[in-house]
Amino acid sequence: MAEHLIRTLRCRNANRPGVFGRLATAIGAADANLGDIRMVWMGPEHIVRDVDVLVEDEATLARVVAAVSAVEDVDLIDVIDDVHELHLDGKLEVRATHPVRTLHDLRRVYTPGVAEVVRSIAADPDESYRYTIRGKTVAIVTNGTRVLGLGNVGPLAALPVMEGKAALLHQFVGLSAFPIVLDTRDAGEIVATVLHLASGFGAIQLEDIESPVCFEVERRLVDALAMPVLHDDQHGTAVAVVAATTNAMARAGLDLARARVGVVGLGAAGTAIARMLGAVTAKPVIGFDPSPDATERLRKSGGEPVASLEALMRDAELVVAVTGRANLIPASLVRRGQGILALTNPDPEIRPEDALAAGAAFAADGRSVNNLLGFPGILRAAIDTRARRIDASMYVAAARAIAEKAGANELVPNPLRRDVHRAVARAVAEAAIKGGVARVRVPSDYQLDQPLRPPAES
Amino acid sequence: MAEHLIRTLRCRNANRPGVFGRLATAIGAADANLGDIRMVWMGPEHIVRDVDVLVEDEATLARVVAAVSAVEDVDLIDVIDDVHELHLDGKLEVRATHPVRTLHDLRRVYTPGVAEVVRSIAADPDESYRYTIRGKTVAIVTNGTRVLGLGNVGPLAALPVMEGKAALLHQFVGLSAFPIVLDTRDAGEIVATVLHLASGFGAIQLEDIESPVCFEVERRLVDALAMPVLHDDQHGTAVAVVAATTNAMARAGLDLARARVGVVGLGAAGTAIARMLGAVTAKPVIGFDPSPDATERLRKSGGEPVASLEALMRDAELVVAVTGRANLIPASLVRRGQGILALTNPDPEIRPEDALAAGAAFAADGRSVNNLLGFPGILRAAIDTRARRIDASMYVAAARAIAEKAGANELVPNPLRRDVHRAVARAVAEAAIKGGVARVRVPSDYQLDQPLRPPAES
Repeated sequence: MAEHLIRTLRCRNANRPGVFGRLATAIGAADANLGDIRMVWMGPEHIVRDVDVLVEDEATLARVVAAVSAVEDVDLIDVIDDVHELHLDGKLEVRATHPVRTLHDLRRVYTPGVAEVVRSIAADPDESYRYTIRGKTVAIVTNGTRVLGLGNVGPLAALPVMEGKAALLHQFVGLSAFPIVLDTRDAGEIVATVLHLASGFGAIQLEDIESPVCFEVERRLVDALAMPVLHDDQHGTAVAVVAATTNAMARAGLDLARARVGVVGLGAAGTAIARMLGAVTAKPVIGFDPSPDATERLRKSGGEPVASLEALMRDAELVVAVTGRANLIPASLVRRGQGILALTNPDPEIRPEDALAAGAAFAADGRSVNNLLGFPGILRAAIDTRARRIDASMYVAAARAIAEKAGANELVPNPLRRDVHRAVARAVAEAAIKGGVARVRVPSDYQLDQPLRPPAES
Repeated sequence: MAEHLIRTLRCRNANRPGVFGRLATAIGAADANLGDIRMVWMGPEHIVRDVDVLVEDEATLARVVAAVSAVEDVDLIDVIDDVHELHLDGKLEVRATHPVRTLHDLRRVYTPGVAEVVRSIAADPDESYRYTIRGKTVAIVTNGTRVLGLGNVGPLAALPVMEGKAALLHQFVGLSAFPIVLDTRDAGEIVATVLHLASGFGAIQLEDIESPVCFEVERRLVDALAMPVLHDDQHGTAVAVVAATTNAMARAGLDLARARVGVVGLGAAGTAIARMLGAVTAKPVIGFDPSPDATERLRKSGGEPVASLEALMRDAELVVAVTGRANLIPASLVRRGQGILALTNPDPEIRPEDALAAGAAFAADGRSVNNLLGFPGILRAAIDTRARRIDASMYVAAARAIAEKAGANELVPNPLRRDVHRAVARAVAEAAIKGGVARVRVPSDYQLDQPLRPPAES
């Protein structure tokens, strides 16, 4: 079940055994998933609990509300829209790191003291990594033309998504990230805008820009800027998928390096996944997409287009689907022993349970394969090493680090684990140094928990 | 004396009476100003103190160091560059306002929960003020072509100054501000870039862009955007100057409304000051600037250019100088009873003490007349009222609020006082509502200390 709505049901339950069990049973029977449950109040007669439910749509929510209201000894007090409440004022804050309480503070933070720092940077622009926010700051750039499963919602409606990504970068790797939402669909205008403002940032993260505009934007920015540019929908996703694939194949007793890989859907993610899996398996990846442009992109990067979904499902031992189309793959096309990663969020091309029932050796959807696994550590390492660009070896290093961190029953580790992001950053920093794209080394005891200070010059 | 360098002298003094007095005397005699003094350590034999000194240049610093080293019973342990240390990693941090510790957190901050908020904003773009950072966020835009007294240092070297302004906005009025430093001197490119990214912000603050490019940029952005655009070098400065002038004239027993005002230097600040003082005095302001363009701007806005500095000094009862040129006005040109505001930082056109010695009724430099007085409250009110633009009545309201907050012996109040910024914001919000440019009202108990939440719809 895809969960599109999250609501908090505030329930006053009679304080006697079995009431909560009946409530939970009613919620499950009405097609909702239980989320967190928090005790709000307890008295001799009643217990008030906030019960989070995840449901597919408003109709389901209405059924859940009706079902809960009908439970004996349960009084539904309120239905709280916690998600909207949490988003009030946005999810980011730009804070001053030094309070300004006295004239002395003011003279150091602002004029006249700041003039000394200005002169240091004017004399040596690299000093900006040390004495400005640039050494820890990412621009998250989008025009909102390809958001989640939502499509073209425009720059303003995409802002909460970008804020979320920025919040995650701060939370997991201590970077400061700021959303830049652009009101244009023109590749040239996007590129010109980013080039004008790039010098104030340590890295550029491109997000949720429609295909094929995203390819041109990425290529031109990578060519023009001697700084990390990460198109997350391509490479962040590919890194997570390759990590999951590595573990999935090993668990199923299959050899990834010898597998015949097929990619369905050759947009931004699919193209990058095909390239990266092509490099890992050292053989051409087959791919299917109805768009001739997408097919041509695959061919150019060494892949082999096939004519139909059926052909792909027949030939591939490992199928990766990133089409944006729910339920695209009928169970009848699944071959026994096949591996299937159906990654469209929130509704996959085929549900893992259906793929497994149809004989797949393993199956997963996009909820476990989250690109949150990749981008924070990659960007942190790219900034800390002041990498001139992010090269393929850095992405492969990230995928390996992620795969190694997975537990015994996981394809990939929980993206909320900080040690995962730390491992990714370390592996990527090492790859950047080894590959010669790093401009500074990181210390051997490279710790993301340390204050964000540019490392010593190499 | 203008202070260009700030250093901390760490001194180990013998713990006996009179030692610190000799140290302080030596510092003063070597042409340094004493800043803060902090006790670092005290033992039976010695007291270690950090003594901040403010000096004009490296040569003076060298003299101070030599003088301190020569003081008996004082051991100069270290000369600390506290300003550079404070700037390590920059002065801002972009923080997540909600921690992401569990899957449930992740699903509310990020996917799938965020999709609900995306849909709300796609359906009604004004919801972005409520559910994104836009309702509290300012873009501070510069290309670094006219920074402080430093001139064209470029975008990167201007970044610490913009960070300082953002830090002050956060500190004093709780706004989130982010520096956008642009690598172009072309007015059209600046305008195009800002228009592309403006929708993610609640207001645009233009800073330190060279004249006359700044005028075209401001005019085109104000015309194109239905949101607050503040060119601080013009209007922020003019607001502080008009506040100071109002009080100075009153204290000198002169009537500002009947005064003959002269402005020297018709760049960004001078032009805006001339316009605002012209409106306040209801008579033409005279002005001098060697540039024909600047003269033409003055004429177009109802002012009267004069041919020389001498002519202006002869005719004006109140002289406001904003030329960027230290010591431009010789004491011999000062008339008895004249008011003089010489505002170039850090070295004014004439030192207040010299102007007073030459017979001025009052004199001040730019250190007390700080545009930090204006921009925070103006921007906070403009954002909170979702003003379509910032009109002249809002600037006049800000100047009045600042003037009223000055103490008995001040031209303007201390800009570190929070109540000043609160008063400015209230006055500007009221003017915005009265003038019809506000899109929402603020509550009658409008408090900047309250959480930054968009006020209820009007």
